[in-house]
Amino acid sequence: VANAFERVAIIGTGLIGTSLALALKAQRDPARISGFDPNAEHRRGAAAQKTPDGRKAFDHVSGNLVETVRSARLIVISTPVRAMEWVCGELGALAEPGTVVTDTGSTKHEVLTWAEKLLPEPLEFVGGHPMAGRVTAGPWEADATIFQNATYCLCPLPRTKDHAVERLVKFVESLGAAPYFLDAQEHDGLVAAVSHLPYLGSVALVETVARRHNWREAAVLAAGGFATASHLTESDPQMFADICLTNREAVTRQLDELRAELAEIRKMVASGDESIKRVFEQAQARHREWVSGRAAEGGRTRETVHPAAVRPQGFFMPGRLGDLIRGRREERDST
Amino acid sequence: VANAFERVAIIGTGLIGTSLALALKAQRDPARISGFDPNAEHRRGAAAQKTPDGRKAFDHVSGNLVETVRSARLIVISTPVRAMEWVCGELGALAEPGTVVTDTGSTKHEVLTWAEKLLPEPLEFVGGHPMAGRVTAGPWEADATIFQNATYCLCPLPRTKDHAVERLVKFVESLGAAPYFLDAQEHDGLVAAVSHLPYLGSVALVETVARRHNWREAAVLAAGGFATASHLTESDPQMFADICLTNREAVTRQLDELRAELAEIRKMVASGDESIKRVFEQAQARHREWVSGRAAEGGRTRETVHPAAVRPQGFFMPGRLGDLIRGRREERDST
Repeated sequence: VANAFERVAIIGTGLIGTSLALALKAQRDPARISGFDPNAEHRRGAAAQKTPDGRKAFDHVSGNLVETVRSARLIVISTPVRAMEWVCGELGALAEPGTVVTDTGSTKHEVLTWAEKLLPEPLEFVGGHPMAGRVTAGPWEADATIFQNATYCLCPLPRTKDHAVERLVKFVESLGAAPYFLDAQEHDGLVAAVSHLPYLGSVALVETVARRHNWREAAVLAAGGFATASHLTESDPQMFADICLTNREAVTRQLDELRAELAEIRKMVASGDESIKRVFEQAQARHREWVSGRAAEGGRTRETVHPAAVRPQGFFMPGRLGDLIRGRREERDST
Repeated sequence: VANAFERVAIIGTGLIGTSLALALKAQRDPARISGFDPNAEHRRGAAAQKTPDGRKAFDHVSGNLVETVRSARLIVISTPVRAMEWVCGELGALAEPGTVVTDTGSTKHEVLTWAEKLLPEPLEFVGGHPMAGRVTAGPWEADATIFQNATYCLCPLPRTKDHAVERLVKFVESLGAAPYFLDAQEHDGLVAAVSHLPYLGSVALVETVARRHNWREAAVLAAGGFATASHLTESDPQMFADICLTNREAVTRQLDELRAELAEIRKMVASGDESIKRVFEQAQARHREWVSGRAAEGGRTRETVHPAAVRPQGFFMPGRLGDLIRGRREERDST
């Protein structure tokens, strides 16, 4: 796949920004890519990343925004969401007319508001969100393959011209991802449910369990189930703080719904209601439907994904995890 | 490791019972093992299981309990928890005096109550719970290695003789697991937090998210985070129904604590409290402490586990998972 833009500037060389640079440099006749990051460690990490055949991810990495965006035809803002307001303000003065600007933020409504207000008319803005995150952060964890077969949300501004949207679609497709257009507020409501709520549930679980007076003993018994449920707490705290602060209403509503659901389950447990088994069967069925739907759809599109490859035990292997992490040996009184 | 008992009867040839048989048959001079299951499909699955060098997991699998326990020196009850009351009642009449009886149930207080009441004095009962579960079920998923380095909880009855407890300790060690003695009620409180709550949190999340009016759209955006958070719903519904019904008080308390924690987080999100980032950092730190503690302790005991091997991203790889399951392609209006 040929590159969709000859010169690309990436603002923020973290996990997503650097993965993007690697993916672009793996293309035939790759774009020239400059990167900006205010963090020197991130700059060093990004500058050190190379494709498997030895091409550097970035032609240039700098702490100077003016230098980075000079003559770029596409600017990708890949910072934590709340930093994007500042970046949009700067780009308004710096970017050349006609430049396409996009972002990779996890919430879209506030970002679009900033872009509309701060980017002048001749800049073409399309909000973006590749559903390609990991629980890791930083340029060291970059991986060119995370965009392959990913759903890539796109939210253009009403004023953005069709030809700019079309070029960005080509760009997204060149990464192996699938463009998915939706309204910014709809996006934020959906990701509150399928992305932000899972993270907050994991945080709440760890805080509940690890603050117990007998956590030391509980930690010995914690195995695959706890490992799975606590895993998402590894995600970047800054990223999720920004998400919560820019998606308050939808996240609050989701938390309320989760609490209501837990209250239902609590009632059944407390009363010894045998029909709780049906709730468990239903959740299992819904989950299986999602997994097999994903497998089938993967098969319909770019790559053949054998359903066996997405069987849940293949994903996580809590058993083998358990084998690795089982721990503290301590015998008590055995009389 | 030589076998600790020459003849072993396993009541219930599901995942744990059949994995146990496989692990015992992999030992030098292995025990003779008979299995009982009321379910013909389970019996067939168990009878078909073999060790890597071709030994059958069970010498005999039957739907006849009398035949199965005849002349066994160790009887392992490996059924869903609530079936154990019936099994204990039967064994009271069938098992030979001096036989050691144990179970592998996920809750211990009710099981010990049944054993104390229903097993006559000359039978030696020690409750057991290997922290070696998986989200799969059935003899087809059996795996001899799940006990290696697992914490194996033991709860003897007060009247159980020391020599019987000591033999069971040898048995547990012969599996590569680490005996961990604790009181039945303490056990039930701890596993409510680290095992039952994670499962119920996952069920509640799936029920919350998949019942949305726009679940079809949300499912397209759901990726690694949702996959991780929903994964535990794959666990056996019968097993967890029995757990909830035999551990009502502790599970109810844990659900209340989780809901209180979610209410705190909700308050911070709704008010746009910037300090939510500190909560996220704290959860991440607690999780990392647990993971590295497990790694260090694994290294101190049986096997050397390099900390890098238990890095969270190694466990689950939601990124690669995402690559596999990302799905439905549907472009909307792109004006």
